[in-house]
Amino acid sequence: MSAGWSDERIARAGITAACDPGAPDLADLVTRMGAAEVWEALRQGPRQTAWSRRAATLDLAELVAQARRSDIRFLIPGDDEWPAGLEDLTRARVGGFGGPPIGLWVCGRARASELLDGSVAIVGARASSPYGDEVAMAMAHDLSRAGRCIVSGGAYGIDAHAHQGALAAQRPTVAFLACGLDRPYPVGNQSLFARILDHEGLLVSEFVPGSAPTKRAFLARNRLIAAASAATVIVEAAARSGARNTIAWAHACARPTLAVPGPVGSAMSVTPHRLIRDGEATLAADADDVLVVVEPLSQGPQLASGGNSRLLDAVPDELMAVREVLPGRGNVSLAEVASAAGRPVPQCLAALSRLEDLGLVAMTDDGLWRLVRPGLPSGGARR
Amino acid sequence: MSAGWSDERIARAGITAACDPGAPDLADLVTRMGAAEVWEALRQGPRQTAWSRRAATLDLAELVAQARRSDIRFLIPGDDEWPAGLEDLTRARVGGFGGPPIGLWVCGRARASELLDGSVAIVGARASSPYGDEVAMAMAHDLSRAGRCIVSGGAYGIDAHAHQGALAAQRPTVAFLACGLDRPYPVGNQSLFARILDHEGLLVSEFVPGSAPTKRAFLARNRLIAAASAATVIVEAAARSGARNTIAWAHACARPTLAVPGPVGSAMSVTPHRLIRDGEATLAADADDVLVVVEPLSQGPQLASGGNSRLLDAVPDELMAVREVLPGRGNVSLAEVASAAGRPVPQCLAALSRLEDLGLVAMTDDGLWRLVRPGLPSGGARR
Repeated sequence: MSAGWSDERIARAGITAACDPGAPDLADLVTRMGAAEVWEALRQGPRQTAWSRRAATLDLAELVAQARRSDIRFLIPGDDEWPAGLEDLTRARVGGFGGPPIGLWVCGRARASELLDGSVAIVGARASSPYGDEVAMAMAHDLSRAGRCIVSGGAYGIDAHAHQGALAAQRPTVAFLACGLDRPYPVGNQSLFARILDHEGLLVSEFVPGSAPTKRAFLARNRLIAAASAATVIVEAAARSGARNTIAWAHACARPTLAVPGPVGSAMSVTPHRLIRDGEATLAADADDVLVVVEPLSQGPQLASGGNSRLLDAVPDELMAVREVLPGRGNVSLAEVASAAGRPVPQCLAALSRLEDLGLVAMTDDGLWRLVRPGLPSGGARR
Repeated sequence: MSAGWSDERIARAGITAACDPGAPDLADLVTRMGAAEVWEALRQGPRQTAWSRRAATLDLAELVAQARRSDIRFLIPGDDEWPAGLEDLTRARVGGFGGPPIGLWVCGRARASELLDGSVAIVGARASSPYGDEVAMAMAHDLSRAGRCIVSGGAYGIDAHAHQGALAAQRPTVAFLACGLDRPYPVGNQSLFARILDHEGLLVSEFVPGSAPTKRAFLARNRLIAAASAATVIVEAAARSGARNTIAWAHACARPTLAVPGPVGSAMSVTPHRLIRDGEATLAADADDVLVVVEPLSQGPQLASGGNSRLLDAVPDELMAVREVLPGRGNVSLAEVASAAGRPVPQCLAALSRLEDLGLVAMTDDGLWRLVRPGLPSGGARR
């Protein structure tokens, strides 16, 4: 049917076509039973659910041919270019959604993992202000220039301006859509999507070709944006905004979250201000404020190869300031670190995670943190 | 010499005239030895220091007459209208300065403690933007209408607009000056100072009549603004700004500190954004964000008289959310409270302080926090 496709890949393609993405029980089932088994059960079992009815009548060969005609390929876990961050969706849950995607439909020549690992999501309102549009463009531009791929949705407003800022910097971006990639939504952004592909960027979706966007689809899609990127920045959002949902997913995936302040009279800055005020996001006034919380992730291997003393020298001051509050021996809680460092808990967690990536701190099984001296194996550090 | 003045009052007036305000050693000495003893030592001892030389040659009777001619009175600790918050300067130190004032020269009919206890300081740059001026005015107006007296300095920019916002609300304000009140600085704000007095507000200074402002004087003055008020809000300040010094004093006095965000491109929002980003100030988008951290202070007595169940009902949700994370028995650290509440440490400290004022939590001798049930004496709560 699909030349060269494994049973696993075929089954996963079928599941994404028949089942609604973001159902955590389905993801668990696929993990435990295997995709082929689940797909067979859906197709052959009693047609009591919408999913099994769709599975039984699905023309999978035609679907795959349709994708091929639109230059859409299909990725599954285990593929070289499968984005590493999606693994964190295994346990993350928000509003009944959760679980890693069963597979991803992808349009564009770049390798997904190369763009997405260490990327930064910039999200926000469709009905953004000129101020928000400008900040989204500038931040995306500067982060792109600093080597960070920008991730967003495909909506008007902040999403579109984030992509435009990256494209202005001649860098690729990734748009996660909540519909089939052969009919990217909204239609008014068609030329933007074309430019993303021209600039070696990617369009990515859990939804099979032909799918129309639904409200449910956007909620499931938000989790991919948060999990695939290393940090999420919210630029503008009114009091009730879907962008809060993406922030919730970033929290659920233990990703640093940042929010851009604005004029206090602007309705579009209400949600960023609330998130900052309540300690749910760190204030980001510019790209540097974002880089501080993500920098070490991609520099890790380069730094480590430079030797131990150079490793410590190269760690940003912001991170060292957090490491320095850890005692020479013994374990301390995240809250104690935050208190000693005089910084908010989310910021300290982000710093500790990056320090752990660099092998400079370690988390114990009971969630406490201890110092690791560079060069010593983690287990050999003094306790 | 000064009809009806006690030896203590005369000595303190002399000390404020001869010595530089904000010297913590002097304040300690006065506390230990008594003001009269210190004053005699300064006047009669060897003239080896600038202070003792000034003390020996001072015409105190003329100084008091000069003050009286300008309608300036002199307050000392123990006076009914002495502001309660100044006590917290006994141990607070910033940049070598510290200690409560030896006395305060005051101009205006209102009682100082009635205006200052529970007041809110609004501070910021002289070279403010139109945006900052507008926010300072609006916030001062709204806080004044909510019953909070506004406290600030006497400078152009944010200081002046904070006073103007309160005056627009037909409420009194207090200006702490760094010079003698008979020659209030800057001259361009003379009509503002006159309007403050017309509106039953106060001009307050540690500096005797005739004193010119100095840089040192402003640093000493900033501690009075922070300590006399219940919270400090910084509206706008460039990267290097004196307003940071007032924030440092507020921290040293364990007062809640807040900062107003603005457009990320504005140089005048750099310091507020950094303070918020680094967890040194809570974001304040409007007066309500400020009232949340100060409200219970003045409502305390009213609430307590309303009975225990009404007390709990009347406590703002923001405070109850912090109280609710305290365990039913046992003590927890501030950092643990912050972690459990998911809020920044400064915000939790502010909430716990207010809850303590209401008798709903208590701090142990070793700085841990525990729940107190309303109606039970603090010592009788379960441990």
